[in-house]
Amino acid sequence: MMRKLKNEELGRPCLEEFKTKEKTPIVLILDNVRSLNNIGSIFRTADAFAIEKIILCGITGTPPNKEISKTALGATESMEWSYCEKTSDAIQKLKQETYFIIAVEQVENSIALNDFSIAPEKKYAIIFGHEIRGVEQEVIDQCDACIEIPQFGTKHSFNVSVSAGIVLWDLFNKLQ
Amino acid sequence: MMRKLKNEELGRPCLEEFKTKEKTPIVLILDNVRSLNNIGSIFRTADAFAIEKIILCGITGTPPNKEISKTALGATESMEWSYCEKTSDAIQKLKQETYFIIAVEQVENSIALNDFSIAPEKKYAIIFGHEIRGVEQEVIDQCDACIEIPQFGTKHSFNVSVSAGIVLWDLFNKLQ
Repeated sequence: MMRKLKNEELGRPCLEEFKTKEKTPIVLILDNVRSLNNIGSIFRTADAFAIEKIILCGITGTPPNKEISKTALGATESMEWSYCEKTSDAIQKLKQETYFIIAVEQVENSIALNDFSIAPEKKYAIIFGHEIRGVEQEVIDQCDACIEIPQFGTKHSFNVSVSAGIVLWDLFNKLQ
Repeated sequence: MMRKLKNEELGRPCLEEFKTKEKTPIVLILDNVRSLNNIGSIFRTADAFAIEKIILCGITGTPPNKEISKTALGATESMEWSYCEKTSDAIQKLKQETYFIIAVEQVENSIALNDFSIAPEKKYAIIFGHEIRGVEQEVIDQCDACIEIPQFGTKHSFNVSVSAGIVLWDLFNKLQ
């Protein structure tokens, strides 16, 4: 029997428990993500994988925002986040804190997601970019590596919140 | 140097090439997915992993539709799809064609996505459900297994297009 579980049966931590819980050593950076819908959806995914923090940069919208809330469904309360106008400033600060900086982008010398090995002792910052322009070249120039999700269809990219889901699941899983 | 690639450098197949290409032996079933935005996004992801087909069931909207196109960005042209009013009819037909039927849902006796082994000789149909209600219990009762994406946050589920991205990437990768 595969009986559907009720929300109360899922054993999720409450807000207070979650706040004090040990987090996955990954920081997300959103580099000029335009759609509030995508930002909210990324908050929700980050909550599910207990990601450390989200840094919202440039034109990326910030909570409190009705449109973000529609897809975040409360994850703006559980997730730690901050705003930094310049993505490069956020990166410099994280580099000083010894984070390994990765952009998810289609570049020369990118590493296919399936080939990327995670080092459990390292801390990672993962950058996702604008829906059309992607991560800016000047941001990529500051990164330690770029990860690319292999694609075999006619389209050039994924929706950014889908990309974030795929990459976070893959890295989270490799950390277990 | 990690130079950003132009769309023309990504080496994507054109529509005609893609149509004749061997596909990933996975059929997607959307069981009453409400949001046209999510449906379009799932088409785009399915294109990227060269999924065999999408079956749209119940209230799930169908192309041609302006809202679906906004997020599918042309993937409604590349992807094979059909409409079936009753999800259970779609399942029965696929069972006759020896597909192994899986719902992505939080149920008793679900298999964690990371624990799920794919058999390369089998063909799979993967069901994703309604944004709030999930996959219907009567649909689950017809399935061979349920997969669950492990979650460690305060929220109860992922956005359905994010779920589809995570599960398709994971299964696609295991097939390689």
